Amino acid sequence: MNLVTIEDIRAAADRIAGTAVRTPLVPAPWADRPLWIKPENLQPVGSFKIRGAFNAVGRIDPERRARGVVAYSSGNHAQAVAYAAKVFGVPAWIVVPEDTPRVKVEATRAHGAEVVLSPIGQREVLANEIVEREDATLVPPFDDPGVIAGQGTIGLEIVTDLPDVDLVLAPVSGGGLISGIAAAVKALRPAAQVWAVEPELAADTAASLAKGELVSWPVEDRNRTIADGLRSQPSELTFRHQRAHVDGIITVSEDEIRDAVAVLAHRAHLVAEPSGAVTVAGLLHHADQLPAGKTVAVLSGGNVDPSALADLLKV
Amino acid sequence: MNLVTIEDIRAAADRIAGTAVRTPLVPAPWADRPLWIKPENLQPVGSFKIRGAFNAVGRIDPERRARGVVAYSSGNHAQAVAYAAKVFGVPAWIVVPEDTPRVKVEATRAHGAEVVLSPIGQREVLANEIVEREDATLVPPFDDPGVIAGQGTIGLEIVTDLPDVDLVLAPVSGGGLISGIAAAVKALRPAAQVWAVEPELAADTAASLAKGELVSWPVEDRNRTIADGLRSQPSELTFRHQRAHVDGIITVSEDEIRDAVAVLAHRAHLVAEPSGAVTVAGLLHHADQLPAGKTVAVLSGGNVDPSALADLLKV
Repeated sequence: MNLVTIEDIRAAADRIAGTAVRTPLVPAPWADRPLWIKPENLQPVGSFKIRGAFNAVGRIDPERRARGVVAYSSGNHAQAVAYAAKVFGVPAWIVVPEDTPRVKVEATRAHGAEVVLSPIGQREVLANEIVEREDATLVPPFDDPGVIAGQGTIGLEIVTDLPDVDLVLAPVSGGGLISGIAAAVKALRPAAQVWAVEPELAADTAASLAKGELVSWPVEDRNRTIADGLRSQPSELTFRHQRAHVDGIITVSEDEIRDAVAVLAHRAHLVAEPSGAVTVAGLLHHADQLPAGKTVAVLSGGNVDPSALADLLKV
Repeated sequence: MNLVTIEDIRAAADRIAGTAVRTPLVPAPWADRPLWIKPENLQPVGSFKIRGAFNAVGRIDPERRARGVVAYSSGNHAQAVAYAAKVFGVPAWIVVPEDTPRVKVEATRAHGAEVVLSPIGQREVLANEIVEREDATLVPPFDDPGVIAGQGTIGLEIVTDLPDVDLVLAPVSGGGLISGIAAAVKALRPAAQVWAVEPELAADTAASLAKGELVSWPVEDRNRTIADGLRSQPSELTFRHQRAHVDGIITVSEDEIRDAVAVLAHRAHLVAEPSGAVTVAGLLHHADQLPAGKTVAVLSGGNVDPSALADLLKV
């Protein structure tokens, strides 16, 4: 099980150019330290997931790719795979739970994907049936070298734009995002630290890193957090990347996450979904646990329901 | 009275590099046409004004600049001049009306500027007194070639990033923004059209362009619009730029502006102040009056009070 390399990440950067937005570092002069936000909410699907999905789809042999791609996800990865398939002009099947909000189903269909509704717990089985039947290719949300390399382009861009960065903060859940970012940052600037941020209510990665092996939390526990993009657990592959490259992890409370969504809207003029705001929550409320210096906080996405956003920004 | 040239704008681009954010074009796949947003709300002071202010301050002879700069404004230009002075390490005096909200006064002071409270109608007089007393330099909000050239860097970036752009939309008020953008776009891609967007309730520029000469609206009328950054009137200098370079103008209603703020937050994940959202309001509600093709809408700023934003995003 090899780790993703900087060469993989550079190849991903070439592949995604023109499809993913080359996001800038947004200075945050209102913060207590030299801080820049990496606004991945500005991607065409509203989150960083387009980088990994597009790179993974782009790596598939064209003849095989033409038969289509399959994903199981109700969230940002689903949108990203559907969008990538649209750009490549190939079919996409997205398997989602039966109780997925209609608005998310419609958003996925709007990209031309076929949405397959699945009974609870049957998503993976159903996705694999489609893969068999159509001879299509599964695009996993994080447990995939192509996906990890795609997310790693964020780290590459950060070091390119801020060569003397001291600290990079990224959310962690399945671990594809931080694995890719850490692989890039450690290759290009070993002196920089990469820290993960996780909700207290879904802190399985913090528990795993503390113990040195994967610790599983019941899904009912992880589902308690408002950060609905951070309810997954690392795979062996992403955990190995984290053990190799990640310097530390902090956890944030639900109130701290809510506060960070409001601060990002009011001070940085960026709409973050709760999962996307955990890094800023960490900086606002746990700066004492973090190394000092020039800091980049990855804002991973902005897909939040209008009514939830209105609630979060209520004064 | 010479118009600003593309050489002036290129010089401004060199000057502001590293201080103003090189904003990307954010694709808007949710729109009815190929649309990209130019998110100037991501600038360090929350609006495009940093470009013009920084360029104008940068053009002052260093010995003279060291004696300080003066601005009269209660809005985004005040923040921008204060920020530019801080970067150059020179004193700044910002003259604001006595009734300016405390939060804006504090924000200006936070950049190290001296805030001078002025009775209604006395701002310009007071600012000129400080200029005399300190031998400092006044930085006007729009009626200045350096300011116009700085704003023009937005047009330069648009054509660099999207060389086959067909239509650029920008808000208009004092006219510094659209004058600079139009000068750049017309120099680099004459085939592209540049259109202005203005609130119906402060449509003095539309009236002026229709008549072919400056038409003044009473300030009480202009102050009716929620778009508090669009209550000024063009100067002779900015009106000349518009007559030379701007292809058309449309106006938008207050409800259309409110709607655009919500759409930008929910679909583009960007917080716009009402003034910053007028271009998207025009696209959402008056597309039939606009040329077709690849379109860039300038989102000029994001400085909106938290309570006003909460109201605008109420579902």
